[in-house]
Amino acid sequence: MISEKMIGFVKNSSIIRAMFEEGKRLDEIYGAENVYDFSLGNPSVEPPLNIKEALISVLNEEEPNLVHGYMNNSGYIDVREKIALSLNKKFNTNLSHENIVMTVGAAGGLNVILKSLLNPGDEVVTFAPFFGEYRNYVSNYDGILVVVPPNCETFQPNLNEFEKRITGKTKAVIVNSPNNPTGVVYSEDTIRKLAEILNKKQQEYNTSIYLISDEPYRELVYDNTEVPYLTKYYKNTIVVYSYSKSLSLPGERIGYLVIPSETDDYEDLVAAANVATRILGFVNAPSLIQRAVARCLDVQVDVEVYNRNRELLYNSLMSYGYECVKPQGAFYLFVKALEEDDKKFAQAAKKYNILIVPGSSFDCPGYVRIAYCVDYDMIKRSLPGFKNLARDYGRLKD
Amino acid sequence: MISEKMIGFVKNSSIIRAMFEEGKRLDEIYGAENVYDFSLGNPSVEPPLNIKEALISVLNEEEPNLVHGYMNNSGYIDVREKIALSLNKKFNTNLSHENIVMTVGAAGGLNVILKSLLNPGDEVVTFAPFFGEYRNYVSNYDGILVVVPPNCETFQPNLNEFEKRITGKTKAVIVNSPNNPTGVVYSEDTIRKLAEILNKKQQEYNTSIYLISDEPYRELVYDNTEVPYLTKYYKNTIVVYSYSKSLSLPGERIGYLVIPSETDDYEDLVAAANVATRILGFVNAPSLIQRAVARCLDVQVDVEVYNRNRELLYNSLMSYGYECVKPQGAFYLFVKALEEDDKKFAQAAKKYNILIVPGSSFDCPGYVRIAYCVDYDMIKRSLPGFKNLARDYGRLKD
Repeated sequence: MISEKMIGFVKNSSIIRAMFEEGKRLDEIYGAENVYDFSLGNPSVEPPLNIKEALISVLNEEEPNLVHGYMNNSGYIDVREKIALSLNKKFNTNLSHENIVMTVGAAGGLNVILKSLLNPGDEVVTFAPFFGEYRNYVSNYDGILVVVPPNCETFQPNLNEFEKRITGKTKAVIVNSPNNPTGVVYSEDTIRKLAEILNKKQQEYNTSIYLISDEPYRELVYDNTEVPYLTKYYKNTIVVYSYSKSLSLPGERIGYLVIPSETDDYEDLVAAANVATRILGFVNAPSLIQRAVARCLDVQVDVEVYNRNRELLYNSLMSYGYECVKPQGAFYLFVKALEEDDKKFAQAAKKYNILIVPGSSFDCPGYVRIAYCVDYDMIKRSLPGFKNLARDYGRLKD
Repeated sequence: MISEKMIGFVKNSSIIRAMFEEGKRLDEIYGAENVYDFSLGNPSVEPPLNIKEALISVLNEEEPNLVHGYMNNSGYIDVREKIALSLNKKFNTNLSHENIVMTVGAAGGLNVILKSLLNPGDEVVTFAPFFGEYRNYVSNYDGILVVVPPNCETFQPNLNEFEKRITGKTKAVIVNSPNNPTGVVYSEDTIRKLAEILNKKQQEYNTSIYLISDEPYRELVYDNTEVPYLTKYYKNTIVVYSYSKSLSLPGERIGYLVIPSETDDYEDLVAAANVATRILGFVNAPSLIQRAVARCLDVQVDVEVYNRNRELLYNSLMSYGYECVKPQGAFYLFVKALEEDDKKFAQAAKKYNILIVPGSSFDCPGYVRIAYCVDYDMIKRSLPGFKNLARDYGRLKD
């Protein structure tokens, strides 16, 4: 009796459930400390203590009917203004509260902006490998996701293939840097070229093409890598941000959209985002946590914890003969599978109680994603397993 | 450049914005204390102190990564189990956590269940007058909203007209009791008859018709009125609940769905609701507030405050010659306009700085909604205006 569109999802969700049950089964047989679950992108670092302090201060200092009450669908004006000023300081932008729409995380933000933009049949381009949910978000509004094949040398976007895929129906392009699942940060050079192509195509087709920058991992970067702020390179950029990773608050569902005043149709776009927030049933981003993050705009989790994990896992895997582009951000390694079929390879890893996600889930077969947002000690305990796995595939001779 | 579907919404939202600006303009001319805004359903009673205490206790006592982290898309199992047990105690139901899906308020819950159920062209029946957003929620999934005309004598549902409107395409029926905008509570007799019709039609068409009970106002009732729990009267009932009104937390976006095990296709329906929560971008209901409300299941706002407002406003308006079914719940009076055109009447009320919403917004022209979730003193100050308005229409001779 459920919707036909949902039937496939339900089937798929029972596969995920089966994987989850398999993990629990392994836990029971071998003990949880001997099972190495690298499958989830759930932040392992605790939220900064400032968040707890901010929440309690808001509760003690502000009016309860303000803290827990309705506000504009786009969020509290004072919160949005503080976020705008903080962005201006960091990125030398020129934003005000009128450019910010508070959202239920980045997933909420992506749905709001796609609902605002898409007519049925409109095309949204993205680059493999990509977060699999993009496909569902675009499908929610009867858009068509157009996938640019990966550049597996560097995992920078493949711009030649990109250019070929833009048509008169292209309404938006989604980029995600630092990237899930590769951890790669798109270089300034890449961004400039991407903007050039978009400008050329907008002229060619006489359309507006919105560049949607999904950046929940912006603050999780290593080796002083710079993540370019895309509004400065391309006029029709919309930023989708979330505090899920930078403040380890994924359950709280808090983030925002940046819609700069210079975007085409700016006023309609902001009004549409406001309405979409309402009618999709979000109504507004949760209120208390809006007010709390506004007090923590200069705070972030301790990235060094993830960096230690990265170094240990990357260096160890390299020494065992694995291949991987060293990630500059996020908390994932995207490693070449040691056989052609990534699903079989992920299955083989289970022999050593290692749980990893096949690259096929990100439209990039032949690779696996290893999420290192886990305990450092778990990584250490897992290393003999990774070593034996490499040995099984003849990568390691000793 | 925005979506065609959104263009109408944006136009409409600028009308609402204009109304809001008009309110501010009146505030500036006459002073806020001389403007009587009865247009919003924003709870005026503060959340119970228990909520603040529960939030702080959760922050002090529970693991931060649990409190702010990802959980199952349906919500924390322990929270859902507590809610199920609390419902069992109150309504003698037989629910467990497997029947509860935590949602981003009732608006989120309605979107999740409609996304789960509707194929394009499926029909959803509701009774005028109704919360105008139902139209948008159904349209989000390309369903068709079928409206049963009002029974203006009692504002109980018009069951003869209802029966005529059920077809083989009817997938769901939405009821809302205590009702926005009338404040009427559907009687047990009404519910029994409604269930009888639904059972007959399910047999006739060999379909499943889901009864969606949207009940954010359940706890706001007066004169010891009983609100029947619909799962006990009709097998295919899904309850949509929100803490927005019972705990004055509308900004927090917290509620839940009840999907009883005996509903047709129960397992697929629960799985679909879980997936819909994820792909619509909610991901999960906000986490900290989930854990806090679970500690406050026997708590509610002081309904007596609304009751005093109700008595003052209802008795005063009656004495001035207005007509209205006395509400047994929620915080609205639905009053017959003193001229045929409810929009003109709402406009006329502005002469006395009284802001009210035309019934046309609820598919019930000829009436106006007066939200009495406001300060008692504001109601007192507004009464001369209501009196003069009645006098203008020749209702009052003195």
